[in-house]
Amino acid sequence: MAKSRFEYVRDFEIQDVLLPQCYIVVRIDGKKFHEFSKYYQFAKPNDERALKLMNACAKNVVRKYRTDIVLAYGESDEYSFVLRKDTSLFNRRKDKIATLFVSLFTSNYVLLWAKFFPGVELHAKHLPFFDSRCVLYPNLQTVKDYVSWRYVDTHINNLYNTAFWMLIQVCNMTPRESEQKLSGTVSSEKQEILFKECGINYNNEPEMYKKGTLITNKGEMKHIDVIKHLEELFHGN
Amino acid sequence: MAKSRFEYVRDFEIQDVLLPQCYIVVRIDGKKFHEFSKYYQFAKPNDERALKLMNACAKNVVRKYRTDIVLAYGESDEYSFVLRKDTSLFNRRKDKIATLFVSLFTSNYVLLWAKFFPGVELHAKHLPFFDSRCVLYPNLQTVKDYVSWRYVDTHINNLYNTAFWMLIQVCNMTPRESEQKLSGTVSSEKQEILFKECGINYNNEPEMYKKGTLITNKGEMKHIDVIKHLEELFHGN
Amino acid sequence: MAKSRFEYVRDFEIQDVLLPQCYIVVRIDGKKFHEFSKYYQFAKPNDERALKLMNACAKNVVRKYRTDIVLAYGESDEYSFVLRKDTSLFNRRKDKIATLFVSLFTSNYVLLWAKFFPGVELHAKHLPFFDSRCVLYPNLQTVKDYVSWRYVDTHINNLYNTAFWMLIQVCNMTPRESEQKLSGTVSSEKQEILFKECGINYNNEPEMYKKGTLITNKGEMKHIDVIKHLEELFHGN
Amino acid sequence: MAKSRFEYVRDFEIQDVLLPQCYIVVRIDGKKFHEFSKYYQFAKPNDERALKLMNACAKNVVRKYRTDIVLAYGESDEYSFVLRKDTSLFNRRKDKIATLFVSLFTSNYVLLWAKFFPGVELHAKHLPFFDSRCVLYPNLQTVKDYVSWRYVDTHINNLYNTAFWMLIQVCNMTPRESEQKLSGTVSSEKQEILFKECGINYNNEPEMYKKGTLITNKGEMKHIDVIKHLEELFHGN
Repeated sequence: MAKSRFEYVRDFEIQDVLLPQCYIVVRIDGKKFHEFSKYYQFAKPNDERALKLMNACAKNVVRKYRTDIVLAYGESDEYSFVLRKDTSLFNRRKDKIATLFVSLFTSNYVLLWAKFFPGVELHAKHLPFFDSRCVLYPNLQTVKDYVSWRYVDTHINNLYNTAFWMLIQVCNMTPRESEQKLSGTVSSEKQEILFKECGINYNNEPEMYKKGTLITNKGEMKHIDVIKHLEELFHGN
Repeated sequence: MAKSRFEYVRDFEIQDVLLPQCYIVVRIDGKKFHEFSKYYQFAKPNDERALKLMNACAKNVVRKYRTDIVLAYGESDEYSFVLRKDTSLFNRRKDKIATLFVSLFTSNYVLLWAKFFPGVELHAKHLPFFDSRCVLYPNLQTVKDYVSWRYVDTHINNLYNTAFWMLIQVCNMTPRESEQKLSGTVSSEKQEILFKECGINYNNEPEMYKKGTLITNKGEMKHIDVIKHLEELFHGN
Repeated sequence: MAKSRFEYVRDFEIQDVLLPQCYIVVRIDGKKFHEFSKYYQFAKPNDERALKLMNACAKNVVRKYRTDIVLAYGESDEYSFVLRKDTSLFNRRKDKIATLFVSLFTSNYVLLWAKFFPGVELHAKHLPFFDSRCVLYPNLQTVKDYVSWRYVDTHINNLYNTAFWMLIQVCNMTPRESEQKLSGTVSSEKQEILFKECGINYNNEPEMYKKGTLITNKGEMKHIDVIKHLEELFHGN
Repeated sequence: MAKSRFEYVRDFEIQDVLLPQCYIVVRIDGKKFHEFSKYYQFAKPNDERALKLMNACAKNVVRKYRTDIVLAYGESDEYSFVLRKDTSLFNRRKDKIATLFVSLFTSNYVLLWAKFFPGVELHAKHLPFFDSRCVLYPNLQTVKDYVSWRYVDTHINNLYNTAFWMLIQVCNMTPRESEQKLSGTVSSEKQEILFKECGINYNNEPEMYKKGTLITNKGEMKHIDVIKHLEELFHGN
């Protein structure tokens, strides 16, 4: 079609092709989900509906780009999608990958909300939205370590949150008291506090809470010790 | 909290702060909206519901980031948000701006769909989603030219599409015949074809179709000759 | 010519075109010139030969790219070249600009060394070399402020160095004593110390030391209050 | 020291840290060496002095950054330095690496010129200078392929140039005739032309011309079939 004399403004766009032969991790993260979860009264420390909604959204993203994705892993309000190192999705353009993934994820989140939060209406002024970034990992070891990092983070966060909220909900502590009680404790001490003070054996907590959710590129959803299964998860990749 | 030995993977994240004192344009663009609009049977050449839905989403984005936005301008399945050159939104991090804008826009799109498309249900396999990019413009002239570029594009596209579809819908041409009829014609010729063949005076077409939609940072929505109003629109910016 | 099956490795090169319509500043900076100046026994606080050599190199760079350069400004072991905002030198490729400038500057430095340091031979293990970077400034105010920044820096550094070395050379202080004497003093106090302790009126110091060296795109070399002359220096740019 | 109100201009500098765990290739390339070699009357197709000068410069660069360099490989007016994937040289800042390497190389080139070109004086208006770039290779295969690419290129270029110049120098062809004679020929045909027309057996040409020059990180200089030795050259890297 005809071109205008303003066409030159396209020259201000910067190309952003990602280095070939590196794994691409797209990590999506809820924007101010602390407030969001308060507004919609999410259960604490974990809201089963919210986690399952995140999982359903991620699963649909994996389904759509199955041939490009190795796995996805999520916890809380975040999800990481690991793309094959040889993917040529969107010509490896960073902006395209980061924005289309987060947009598709968001689209699913709002559409599926009613299914997972029946009777809870989304309000236009309190909408869910997410940021997204692409990170490159040049080899198998580093991308495995990335997944391990998120897995360990899930454990650390969930153990802390479980202890923090149980001390409040079961032992009637104030948030400040709970925080002080846990301050400076290591994992084993937190588990002991949970058991002695609240009568809760952390090992019996739901696997989804403790281990996050893994989605394979076949669309299977698992709550497993991801670190132990990295070998097979990345097999052939 | 405790840090794991995997923490080093964060070093692979690349910073992406946008050059200070440049206008930032965030342009959002529908992903495969050709297919999307077919699936949901959008009216051709323009679907009023779809355009009004786009406008409503953009308006909500403008409202949320009002102090950072100069204006927004949209047509068809795209929207551009012009941010003030001195904005420090998200510390001017490119990925944050591009992804949060597109995610918020998408969230609105899905939520508001039912309002603008009553009785048309969104299907999980045919979800709307958008890409997004940030472009820097270092001065007033270039950012004005950017807006002019999109405005002229609206005119060019809409005139062509109107003529193309009217030849089909009114004159019973096939798409190929219509395309050939218009091939190589300039604007005035297309308008003449429209008038002589289809009895349609392009000047009487709805302003929203011909001129796109401008949203000021006060949230006002206008269908005007944007180029003529650039001076006042950027006044003080 | 024939292409090999290894040609694909070119795809790993990342483009790096600089944003149009921004001033480009190329700043060149001596690598470990503290050691370098010690080895070749530069006079302290200023070595006239070394500064004049820097100026001669910069002048030759300006001459070569005269139509692309607004001005150059240097002090000590650094030089800044300000390129016109509309330059298309090397297609505005960042790596090309940064590396060709520093290479040409270095080439001049070694060639002209013998002229400015007669009788002092350069040793292969103690060669001069420089780093270089490109910085973008989107408008006249910011690029003027860049030049002002370097000018003020020249003043601050030279006043300190002059006082520091005079206390050592004239008053026989040790470096540590000199440092302590100056610690926490403002400009006027340093000037007073210089005058009272060493009998030196800073105002009478050579202009090149106090004000650095400005090179216009006509190749004129000046030692002036750059801040006062910014208007005319950038006139028409 | 004191900071001025102009200090903010530093915020316009963009960070440029190279992705960890990738091999970094720094390739230096002569600027307009076609003209340069004409001006200083380099022998054609190869000037032994010029090649040995390039090698000497590269060797000095390798020596200086020996612990960070795997190998260097050069031909004609270019040199590639392969840095270890775990190097933290200059904190992996791209600009620092690209510019300091090219500056040090240039410094050597001008200093050593007199040694390799005795009696030929460098003129200030015809100085040698080089561009430089950093390219990332995320694994052993790609970085090996990079070296292979340059090696094959050496062969292709040198065979063509040798045939081209011998047809001129030995057979008294004009450049145009020589070009036409070689147009469309494959390697074996060029070798045959060389032999039949000029009586030159390409196999007997100097190894440095045919194979380029490899410099190991121990500073050894070799003219070998690089592709055959990649395994040992990258052993342990």
